[in-house]
Amino acid sequence: MKYEAFFERHIESLRQEGRYRVFADLERKAGAFPQALHRHGAQARPVTVWCSNDYLGMGQHPLVIEAMHEALNRCGAGAGGTRNISGTNHTHVLLEREIADLHGKPAALLFNSGYMSNWATLSTLASRMPGCVVLSDASNHASMIEGIRHSRAETQVFAHNDPDDLARRLAALDPHRPKIVAFESVYSMDGDIAPIETFCDLADEHGAMTYLDEVHAVGLYGPRGGGIAEARGLSHRLTVIEGTLAKGFGVVGGYIAGSEALCDFVRSCASGFIFTTSVPPAIAAGALASIRHLKASGVERERHQERVATLRARLDRAGIAHLANESHIVPVMVGDAALCKTISDTLMERFGIYVQPINYPTVPRGTERLRFTPTPMHTDDDIDHLVASLATVWSELGMREAA
Amino acid sequence: MKYEAFFERHIESLRQEGRYRVFADLERKAGAFPQALHRHGAQARPVTVWCSNDYLGMGQHPLVIEAMHEALNRCGAGAGGTRNISGTNHTHVLLEREIADLHGKPAALLFNSGYMSNWATLSTLASRMPGCVVLSDASNHASMIEGIRHSRAETQVFAHNDPDDLARRLAALDPHRPKIVAFESVYSMDGDIAPIETFCDLADEHGAMTYLDEVHAVGLYGPRGGGIAEARGLSHRLTVIEGTLAKGFGVVGGYIAGSEALCDFVRSCASGFIFTTSVPPAIAAGALASIRHLKASGVERERHQERVATLRARLDRAGIAHLANESHIVPVMVGDAALCKTISDTLMERFGIYVQPINYPTVPRGTERLRFTPTPMHTDDDIDHLVASLATVWSELGMREAA
Repeated sequence: MKYEAFFERHIESLRQEGRYRVFADLERKAGAFPQALHRHGAQARPVTVWCSNDYLGMGQHPLVIEAMHEALNRCGAGAGGTRNISGTNHTHVLLEREIADLHGKPAALLFNSGYMSNWATLSTLASRMPGCVVLSDASNHASMIEGIRHSRAETQVFAHNDPDDLARRLAALDPHRPKIVAFESVYSMDGDIAPIETFCDLADEHGAMTYLDEVHAVGLYGPRGGGIAEARGLSHRLTVIEGTLAKGFGVVGGYIAGSEALCDFVRSCASGFIFTTSVPPAIAAGALASIRHLKASGVERERHQERVATLRARLDRAGIAHLANESHIVPVMVGDAALCKTISDTLMERFGIYVQPINYPTVPRGTERLRFTPTPMHTDDDIDHLVASLATVWSELGMREAA
Repeated sequence: MKYEAFFERHIESLRQEGRYRVFADLERKAGAFPQALHRHGAQARPVTVWCSNDYLGMGQHPLVIEAMHEALNRCGAGAGGTRNISGTNHTHVLLEREIADLHGKPAALLFNSGYMSNWATLSTLASRMPGCVVLSDASNHASMIEGIRHSRAETQVFAHNDPDDLARRLAALDPHRPKIVAFESVYSMDGDIAPIETFCDLADEHGAMTYLDEVHAVGLYGPRGGGIAEARGLSHRLTVIEGTLAKGFGVVGGYIAGSEALCDFVRSCASGFIFTTSVPPAIAAGALASIRHLKASGVERERHQERVATLRARLDRAGIAHLANESHIVPVMVGDAALCKTISDTLMERFGIYVQPINYPTVPRGTERLRFTPTPMHTDDDIDHLVASLATVWSELGMREAA
């Protein structure tokens, strides 16, 4: 086989479909979020970032950065090993305790990324429990899907956020088989939120475990930033809560929180946990500072929600249609991969606005979109400039205005 | 099913087998490697770490730490997104160029961990090339095995480091099917090294790609730290070289280096690359500084090899048997999980020496061992104290001395 030709053909087909991804080469500027430099060839131009997952701007919070400097000086750059072989630093231990407390669970387990926490935990649980069936929401994230697939356990995909479909499927299964109901709280692309309580009721009724991915909610929702489950008083109902130390907490890494025995089981069995160098002490220290701050401070969450509401109101006034939802994610639907990329390029080049086009496979074909994530740091001027720029582009391209 | 009871039973069985892992709670001390604090209950005692994978101590190198401080101040804590959605920082771009140059390849691709680079690359290549067969060394790392398994491609496991077995298997396959020969350079537990040139010859003869994991070699071997392939003048023979930014480079993260088309293909298709927040700019900056330094400086590599030779010579003189190999890894075989743990506990408690017992499933049962990794920072006194302590324990436990 001609390997190079095979790879080149695939790349060419992506280009022809308008799906070839060009990464924007950025330089974030701590203290000036959401402003950044965008490099293109020899040029470097200032842009306003409108699609970061650093939802609260915690990545530039002085307490977070200071904690990282301090740990870097004290412990050095890397962790120096896997968790088992010299790579457990005291900061990892403190961070796991803090995460457990955040979710009101007895224990927590830290991973190198949210992707890995989903993949490793779901693949381990579903493969190790004999006869396990996973009931997986149709819109679950790639990392959950790959973890479930890797387990080779029987999988039933239930209709997105649909308790009736889930109930039917649970009722049809042997009551003695182990079952995991796996779903997310906030779905990242549409911004809609799961009926967590109803899913927990159904799981209890049928003897299933619940696995909730809160990556787009931790730090952002709940009185202490414990996510949608905390906001709704449901944390105790979930068997596993999975979250990220990127996004709302502004650093990097992933985790699960649950019972002592469950976390110890995953710690002891999950290949993706065991056989990997642990996160640097400075990363763990930054995440720890971020969680502690957001447990005590609601200012960021309030300002965040206010900014989201303001953007929505101004988009409405300008007649730019956006997808209604209960969360902080503001999707403006375009419905065509090439058009979506054209709009994104125009916003970057003419208006200094960076929003990545979201195309297949991240979203289904025909639902291509621009996905705006306002942060507490986006000013009124930033919002006005965005909405005016969108209105100009909409008018130039003859896009339909909202009714 | 009683989930908690299931997890508890499994944990209990690990305890009974002596395989339950207790992580040593450490505090690394930058500037004082390999010294660290070991916390146990309320106590914190100084220990000498003898099992870190920060092989050259680059985790405390002033250039690495300074680069991380600088990037932290300039760009903040996290990357702020996936590589495609606002998470590409200019430092990622520079780091990928530096890695490509290190291995003499046109391109490179950065991952959050070495585990992820192996898992995502192998699963993507093997699943996407129709009819692909993976020929996988019997001692390959868990991350490679899981990636290959995830691809669901046909897999042939060949005898460890055995060209004859590989040749037989290649010859028996349809010449038109795509094939990947996947192996490591330095195997981490025995420290033996693959016959890379012979494997490349066989792959060429049978039209197979080669995939070489150099995680225990990059930074450590070759005139610029490009690994065993560089040391042997073979970098150009490999289709993919995979490496880590932890271990020799002292930070965290993983990568592949290869052709433009191959890296672009993996970049465009690999779920584990696409759907994860990228590594923090400060991590990328630290890794970049580390690679640049070790490209230019051979001092660390020379001192490292000298320390390894010194430890071996003094173990020989004391009659402590160790596994012969060509690498920097010094395995002292024990052959029993409980005994291995007892020795490790004794060294920690009575002698302030930390070396983790290596038990199943990291190594096969019956080959349990202590695995020593001397660094350039281990002094003559450190080595003398280690050897004398081992001799005391060996004598107390009636362990057989080397002939």
